[in-house]
Amino acid sequence: MTIAILTDFGLEDTYTAIMKGVMLKINPELRFVDITHSIPQGDIKKAAFRLFTAYKYFPANTIFLVVVDPGVGTKRLPIIIKTNDYYFVGPDNGIFSWIYTYERCKVYSIKPIPKNISNTFHGKDIFAPVAAKLSKGIKITQLGEELKQWTFFKIPAPQKSKDTIEGEIIDIDGFGNLITNIESAKLSKKVKITIKGLTIIGIEKSYTGVYPIAIKGSAGFLEISLPNGNCAKKLKARIGTKICIHLH
Amino acid sequence: MTIAILTDFGLEDTYTAIMKGVMLKINPELRFVDITHSIPQGDIKKAAFRLFTAYKYFPANTIFLVVVDPGVGTKRLPIIIKTNDYYFVGPDNGIFSWIYTYERCKVYSIKPIPKNISNTFHGKDIFAPVAAKLSKGIKITQLGEELKQWTFFKIPAPQKSKDTIEGEIIDIDGFGNLITNIESAKLSKKVKITIKGLTIIGIEKSYTGVYPIAIKGSAGFLEISLPNGNCAKKLKARIGTKICIHLH
Amino acid sequence: MTIAILTDFGLEDTYTAIMKGVMLKINPELRFVDITHSIPQGDIKKAAFRLFTAYKYFPANTIFLVVVDPGVGTKRLPIIIKTNDYYFVGPDNGIFSWIYTYERCKVYSIKPIPKNISNTFHGKDIFAPVAAKLSKGIKITQLGEELKQWTFFKIPAPQKSKDTIEGEIIDIDGFGNLITNIESAKLSKKVKITIKGLTIIGIEKSYTGVYPIAIKGSAGFLEISLPNGNCAKKLKARIGTKICIHLH
Repeated sequence: MTIAILTDFGLEDTYTAIMKGVMLKINPELRFVDITHSIPQGDIKKAAFRLFTAYKYFPANTIFLVVVDPGVGTKRLPIIIKTNDYYFVGPDNGIFSWIYTYERCKVYSIKPIPKNISNTFHGKDIFAPVAAKLSKGIKITQLGEELKQWTFFKIPAPQKSKDTIEGEIIDIDGFGNLITNIESAKLSKKVKITIKGLTIIGIEKSYTGVYPIAIKGSAGFLEISLPNGNCAKKLKARIGTKICIHLH
Repeated sequence: MTIAILTDFGLEDTYTAIMKGVMLKINPELRFVDITHSIPQGDIKKAAFRLFTAYKYFPANTIFLVVVDPGVGTKRLPIIIKTNDYYFVGPDNGIFSWIYTYERCKVYSIKPIPKNISNTFHGKDIFAPVAAKLSKGIKITQLGEELKQWTFFKIPAPQKSKDTIEGEIIDIDGFGNLITNIESAKLSKKVKITIKGLTIIGIEKSYTGVYPIAIKGSAGFLEISLPNGNCAKKLKARIGTKICIHLH
Repeated sequence: MTIAILTDFGLEDTYTAIMKGVMLKINPELRFVDITHSIPQGDIKKAAFRLFTAYKYFPANTIFLVVVDPGVGTKRLPIIIKTNDYYFVGPDNGIFSWIYTYERCKVYSIKPIPKNISNTFHGKDIFAPVAAKLSKGIKITQLGEELKQWTFFKIPAPQKSKDTIEGEIIDIDGFGNLITNIESAKLSKKVKITIKGLTIIGIEKSYTGVYPIAIKGSAGFLEISLPNGNCAKKLKARIGTKICIHLH
């Protein structure tokens, strides 16, 4: 059984290892995959998108332990989500917004909360134990209570008109690729794209040339990339930078 | 069987992977957990404290492979420690000082040392093989010889008087939380705390407000934190910064 | 079965986790070891050397998944290499040059390439699935077709004369140790070494003193190190910096 872990804990502290220790005490047969621990601290939106880019590649029954939790110790609920194939465990702070959008979800409030726990590290005291218990086959209905409402942020949807799709940059990866919120599967290769005053003609099949290109990215969205360079730096683009696709 | 690894090797070099390869050759069934590899090079004190914060969360029989070893190739001994629940393998340079303080320990000098080994990478040539052999069930008495004396540094103890506890900052985590050497379990919530000219009234139950607060941290010590901010930067606090608790 | 992974994906993005998910879908019993993901982007030479430093410590039948692939989506072939003990999977861009030099290799072009794959992330679409299939015992001849020619760069060989060996720095590790291309096993301890205007007399057995020393490194090459310091910074040495060994 695999537990895939995404946090903003960084790699210097021992918090992620502590959660793994806690889980191995409950289920010594676990396998861990680190998705990333380098989410900027408290950046729920980035965490939510990064989780979305990775989860679907994992085998059925994978449990995702997601701890980007700036509201730890406040009233935000600890939750479990059940989709067709997966479990997700973490705080109800919007971190699962992309999952809610793309998956049919049942959401549970973790109950009972253990007594005498910290108010500073629910990853250790609530989330990791629940993830490990799920991996042992303990039923979700024994670990929580179904919720009718949960927290999510609106995923920025592109604006579509007859002639254009107006979108924005929602993530920038370590190579400087600009990931847009425009789903690329059905886009014609012949579109014209404008971003940051630059016009890009057509969608390329691979990283070629020495100028920024548009390409269908592996996450399912249109990306703007600079072959062998950092497109984000080149274009001074950021999260939120607008992009327009001219369909004709 | 889990081997939990803590080093100052960083994440760019292949030294940690080499140790894992060496161990898998001896025991192909091993599970590894990386505690951290980002200890500042040669910082034995930080390594010692970070190990302490994590070890007790691991299942019984976990083997801790700890390689922060600025004296590699000198006369410092390679050792194994046996506590009630765990094994620790690494250099006798003080790195296990916190373990000695909190656990009943038997300490063994690794013997015989293999012939024709490097003088630059005992992690590969001595420590990893011994950790893997322990995981195979080889007895500690076959891997070493009990020691009467070992190396440790004095853990900075707080100074207690009738009215005050004077302590210091012993670690700063990646969120900027200041971890003190003052055990928090028995502290009243109503104490007054002074640090860096700042007075903090009372111990909070969770991260609330916009000013530095005192809170009982997950490692068992009082911590000073800035909710949603970096307290270390805010207060210009460092390892060694003094803190005083006024009990009445 | 172990899959050891080396990439230039960094630790912030989810690309490595995606490959692990893809592999676990094919073989849920896999064990992963991360060699490093911090190769500078597209630095095939550094990736090739780092792979070389680590591979031989792994158990027989380890599969190495190596994805430093600036030419993804171009005509460079995806390949599998079979040596006596190991498999290597990755792009045919020179990344296996050190393996070709030190191992007897059979090289296979991966065929057939799956249809409708991305041109941006062959790690996910080609290399990870092939690595996982090898781990399941699928024969290499079912996954590829033997090649007669492949890509490699010339490993910088030292120039030997009767009195000198002229070499160069081929890697610098995180401690600032300078790794040369001069094999150290047979070197006399009494040689004189010149680098960056500095003369070093003799090869030390361990890190001692306060000046740069020569030492036989764990990778099998002569290294220049500054005990408890960063030799690369001290000497302003770089990849390519010349070094001369005077044998008499």
